[in-house]
Amino acid sequence: MEKKRPLLLLSNDDGVMAKGLNVLIDILRPLGDIVVMAPDGGRSGCACGVTVSQPIHYQLISEEPGVAIYKCTGMPVDCVKLAMHAVLDRTPDVVVSGINHGDNSSINVHYSGTMGVVIEGCLSGIPAVGFSLCDHHHDASFEPLRSYIFDIVKNVIEKGLPAEVCLNVNFPVADPIKGIKVCQQAKGYWNQEFDPCPRKFDDKYFWLAGSFINTDASNDKNDRTALDNGYATITPVKVDVTAYEAIEQIEAWFI
Amino acid sequence: MEKKRPLLLLSNDDGVMAKGLNVLIDILRPLGDIVVMAPDGGRSGCACGVTVSQPIHYQLISEEPGVAIYKCTGMPVDCVKLAMHAVLDRTPDVVVSGINHGDNSSINVHYSGTMGVVIEGCLSGIPAVGFSLCDHHHDASFEPLRSYIFDIVKNVIEKGLPAEVCLNVNFPVADPIKGIKVCQQAKGYWNQEFDPCPRKFDDKYFWLAGSFINTDASNDKNDRTALDNGYATITPVKVDVTAYEAIEQIEAWFI
Repeated sequence: MEKKRPLLLLSNDDGVMAKGLNVLIDILRPLGDIVVMAPDGGRSGCACGVTVSQPIHYQLISEEPGVAIYKCTGMPVDCVKLAMHAVLDRTPDVVVSGINHGDNSSINVHYSGTMGVVIEGCLSGIPAVGFSLCDHHHDASFEPLRSYIFDIVKNVIEKGLPAEVCLNVNFPVADPIKGIKVCQQAKGYWNQEFDPCPRKFDDKYFWLAGSFINTDASNDKNDRTALDNGYATITPVKVDVTAYEAIEQIEAWFI
Repeated sequence: MEKKRPLLLLSNDDGVMAKGLNVLIDILRPLGDIVVMAPDGGRSGCACGVTVSQPIHYQLISEEPGVAIYKCTGMPVDCVKLAMHAVLDRTPDVVVSGINHGDNSSINVHYSGTMGVVIEGCLSGIPAVGFSLCDHHHDASFEPLRSYIFDIVKNVIEKGLPAEVCLNVNFPVADPIKGIKVCQQAKGYWNQEFDPCPRKFDDKYFWLAGSFINTDASNDKNDRTALDNGYATITPVKVDVTAYEAIEQIEAWFI
C-alpha cells in the first residue's frame, strides 16, 4: 500500500487572513498535505479557551491540491478539536500553529492562543509546535524564519516528540538570526498592566498594557534572554502540570 | 504597628452572581478582609485568556465591613490583574477562585477559567488556590465542602505554598466526602467532542460536547479517579511548564 504523505493540521490565533499563517502554509507545503482550520478573525490572548456558550460554525474557504483552508467561529483550541472531529479523515502527523504576530516566550505561554493550538494538539497525542515572531505588526517580515521553521517541522515529523511534550518556538526580530537555542521558560512578570482610557463621567475603563520584566535575565538558557541576544528559541512545554515535588509538603497539612 | 488582617482576593469564571462564589465569600469571611473582582457574567472555559481588543470596565457593586465586591467586563485573569493594579492598596495574602460549578480535574486545568485566576495569582507571586465541585448546576449544593475549603485556605495563608506552585482543588458530589487526597493530574482525553446543531440549509454548526476518558483509572493518585471514589482532591500545579527532561533530546537535532 502506498504510504500517505504526512498530514499537517495548521491553525493560529491571529485569524485565517493573517500574514503569518499564510507564510506558514507556504513554508510547509513541501512537507505534506495541509489542512488549515483557523479562527475567522483575531483571537489573541485567548489561551486554551474553548467556546461553550454558543455553537461553532465552520466553512471551507479554499481548496487546491495539497492545501485545504477552513475558517470557523471558534477559538484556537476549538479549531483543533473541530478539525479532528468534523473535517479530517485521519489523525494529523503534526499540529502546527502560527506564525504568531507577537512574542509567546516566558510566561506568555499561559496567555497565548497560538500555544492553545499546540497544547490541544499535544493533549490529543499529536506532535505539536507553535511559532511566534517578536513583532506584532500585521505586515511583519517572516523571511528570516523560513529555513528554521521548515527544519523544525521536518524534525518533528520524522523524529516525533516525547509523550506529553510540545514545542514553543519564538523568533527575534533579527536578520540574520544567530542560531537556535533550546531553552527554559524565562522567569518574570508583567508590570503596570493597565492604561486608563476614561469615558465621560466614568474613569473605570482600562486597556490591558504593561511591560515584561525578565527576572532571570543573566541566564542565557532562559528563552526571553536568548531572544534578546538574537537567537531563535525552542522551549519544550509539558502538558502534565502537576507539581509532583510539592505533593508530600501538602500531604503533611492533613496528617 | 497593628498587624493587618489577611487580605483575600476572590474571583471565579461563573460570574459575580454565581452561587459558588457567594458561598465562598461566606466560608472565608472569618479568615480576613475579602475583595471580590469577578466577571459580570459567565466565562466558563476561558482558561488564562486576557482581554486585549477592548477596554475593561469595572464597578463596585457592594461594600460592607470586611467584604467589597466588584464586577468587571473582563475575563478571570483580567480580574486578578485589574484588582491588583487598580483597586487593592496592598498585595493580597492569597488569591482564591471558585467555587466553580463543574469539574476542573485532570486536563481540564488547561481549559479552566477558575484555574486561570489561580495561575495568574501564582504568576504574580501570591499563594493561590481554586475550588471546583463536580456539579455544573446553578443551584448545586456546596454545604459538604465548607470545612474543607476553610481548612485549605487557612493552611495556605498560614503555611504558604512552594514558589511557582498553586493548588487545583476539586470536590466530588458526595455527602459526606470521604476525605482529602493530594493527587496528580489524571491522564486522559475528551472523545466525540461535538454535537451537530444544523441550521436550515447549513449542517456545519456544532456544540462542543463529549465525555472524558480517564486512561489511568486504576491509579488512585490520579485526581479524576480519587474524585470517582468520593474523595476531595488537591492537585498541586506548576506554572513553569518547561519540559526540562526534553531539552537534551531536542538539542541533539541541531548538532
